[in-house]
Amino acid sequence: MSEKKHILDYDTVALDDENRALVIIDQTQLPYHTEILHLTSQKQIWEAIYKLQVRGAPAIGVAAGYGVYLAAREIQAESYDDFCRQFKEASAYLNSSRPTAVNLSWALKRMEKVVDDSRGRSADEILALLKAEACAIQQEDIDTCRRIGEYGLSLVKPGDGLLTHCNAGQLATSKYGTATAPMYLGHERGYNFHVFCDETRPLLQGARLTAYELKDSGLNVTLICDNMSASVMKKGWVNAVFVGCDRVAANGDTANKIGTSVVATVANYYHVPFYICAPTSTIDMNTPTGEQINIEQRPAEEVTELWYQKRMAPEGVDVYNPAFDVTDAGLITGIVTEYGIARPPYTESLKAIMEKKAKEQV
Amino acid sequence: MSEKKHILDYDTVALDDENRALVIIDQTQLPYHTEILHLTSQKQIWEAIYKLQVRGAPAIGVAAGYGVYLAAREIQAESYDDFCRQFKEASAYLNSSRPTAVNLSWALKRMEKVVDDSRGRSADEILALLKAEACAIQQEDIDTCRRIGEYGLSLVKPGDGLLTHCNAGQLATSKYGTATAPMYLGHERGYNFHVFCDETRPLLQGARLTAYELKDSGLNVTLICDNMSASVMKKGWVNAVFVGCDRVAANGDTANKIGTSVVATVANYYHVPFYICAPTSTIDMNTPTGEQINIEQRPAEEVTELWYQKRMAPEGVDVYNPAFDVTDAGLITGIVTEYGIARPPYTESLKAIMEKKAKEQV
Repeated sequence: MSEKKHILDYDTVALDDENRALVIIDQTQLPYHTEILHLTSQKQIWEAIYKLQVRGAPAIGVAAGYGVYLAAREIQAESYDDFCRQFKEASAYLNSSRPTAVNLSWALKRMEKVVDDSRGRSADEILALLKAEACAIQQEDIDTCRRIGEYGLSLVKPGDGLLTHCNAGQLATSKYGTATAPMYLGHERGYNFHVFCDETRPLLQGARLTAYELKDSGLNVTLICDNMSASVMKKGWVNAVFVGCDRVAANGDTANKIGTSVVATVANYYHVPFYICAPTSTIDMNTPTGEQINIEQRPAEEVTELWYQKRMAPEGVDVYNPAFDVTDAGLITGIVTEYGIARPPYTESLKAIMEKKAKEQV
Repeated sequence: MSEKKHILDYDTVALDDENRALVIIDQTQLPYHTEILHLTSQKQIWEAIYKLQVRGAPAIGVAAGYGVYLAAREIQAESYDDFCRQFKEASAYLNSSRPTAVNLSWALKRMEKVVDDSRGRSADEILALLKAEACAIQQEDIDTCRRIGEYGLSLVKPGDGLLTHCNAGQLATSKYGTATAPMYLGHERGYNFHVFCDETRPLLQGARLTAYELKDSGLNVTLICDNMSASVMKKGWVNAVFVGCDRVAANGDTANKIGTSVVATVANYYHVPFYICAPTSTIDMNTPTGEQINIEQRPAEEVTELWYQKRMAPEGVDVYNPAFDVTDAGLITGIVTEYGIARPPYTESLKAIMEKKAKEQV
């Protein structure tokens, strides 16, 4: 067995060679332990998604694809219709692990379509097609991230200082990540970036995950608190900001982890280009502007208690804890997708990107 | 002994009745325990300043005044010159505890001047003068904060939403605080403010101290993470920002707790007035601009370990942890001093303030 030393030697999500287990890195144990989980039962897979042992929208989609394929392998069916029924039960079960994660239901629907289209095929044929579809979901994620990385890399030069917020990294996808894709591709090519990583309060995904995966991959990374972005930009240490996103509205307004719009405002003041790395699956042409994006409010304890260990604020104090904020399109220099880079005005450029995608997929 | 129920019933910094100890509230223990420390040795006092058990520029100045007075009481001198030498050694030692806070060296210089002007006086006379000077530093601090509060209050109206960063509160001064002085005076007069309080990473002075003292005093306070300022300003919830400062340069550039310039940049973008509350003792006319202000770098562990309890970032990751940043004068709406409010251009208005001060002190 080959020696795996670095976090990125592991796949974030994979199928084991015997097609018997979903293999993931337990992200709740990072950055302390690199614990690899082999999940064989549907209950284990459901819990891994529910407990955020696997997290990040693309990674959850891939886990669901392989997960429901593993469920299909266990099905003892009397007929095609019986197989269909049992498969959809398994799919519905996994889908209930995080009801709001879009990629979860999107991936499961793709898998269900394979079964729906397979009347008349043997069980072995259906299983082979399901495995191929799950692999395709993963491969498309890898391709998308790689293409975003190439486009992103075209925006920077060797030796640049880069800044990122939260974790839109390899740990949230199958490979490369989105915001980190230009960093990894540049690193492979000797670009010698210096990456500043916002810790990202309250849940510290930047400190725990991004700083970890970048450092472990040999990149030059410096961790900062979220309120230090102005200090490093004022010193001229940052040549570009790359962040991920949860949803991009048709006008370019972008919802991402809380604090993203603060980074964008500071970058704007210091004339540092600010780029959103956005798979086209996150571009929502049906949402006209950021005004229509509903922002999830999260528990006060995330702010008042340090990682649920020690209280750091007075008992009973009011807390405002939005999970995301919306960055005005006017603060965004470019939106990097797998079909190219959208530039202002976004109402036109995002439309062109989506048209290009539709054309290429025909 | 009278029952002390609220944090503000205690003096932030005081001399004990027997002139033997500097008495402080250990601010590193708040908001859990109201622990009162009686510091008798110079090493204890140095460490209390270094470890931020006493913190905030004015409170440090008061602590340094009483601290070096206590040192003077221990001096066994053969002559006035010997006393002078030993006193200045003690003063230099305390001065080495924090590099950026101008009040520390300012207070110590005032104390040294008492000694310099006392050739021919007895040791007892010098000690009495030193105690009087230290008490004067404290009383002037109280008067200064109250006057800043009155000027600051003239800038806002009842029902306003205010935002502050770090702790420029009563806990940072002898009474009222600087940034909080308009809040306390307004609260006494029924202004019904809503105060948003940045938690202020890495040491969380906003969560631990400001939220605590404001809530304890009955103000309406909401705690936010530092990266949420844009979210609350975008909603129109903030009518003015009040922050303290560690040093104001002659052109208005202002050094304050790390993250202050981020708040200023965000406030500027959302057209929210941004005010520095600055005792004239923090205005340094010999520092032309913020470029000349030396910024203290602090230990990485403040960022990577949650209050020194649990590691939240990978081992060995680089950390950039400046204690302060400099806010460009161009981002500051006004500088509120005890001699009035300076407005841009600050090179002229700060000079006028300092001239007014000099005139009133004659």
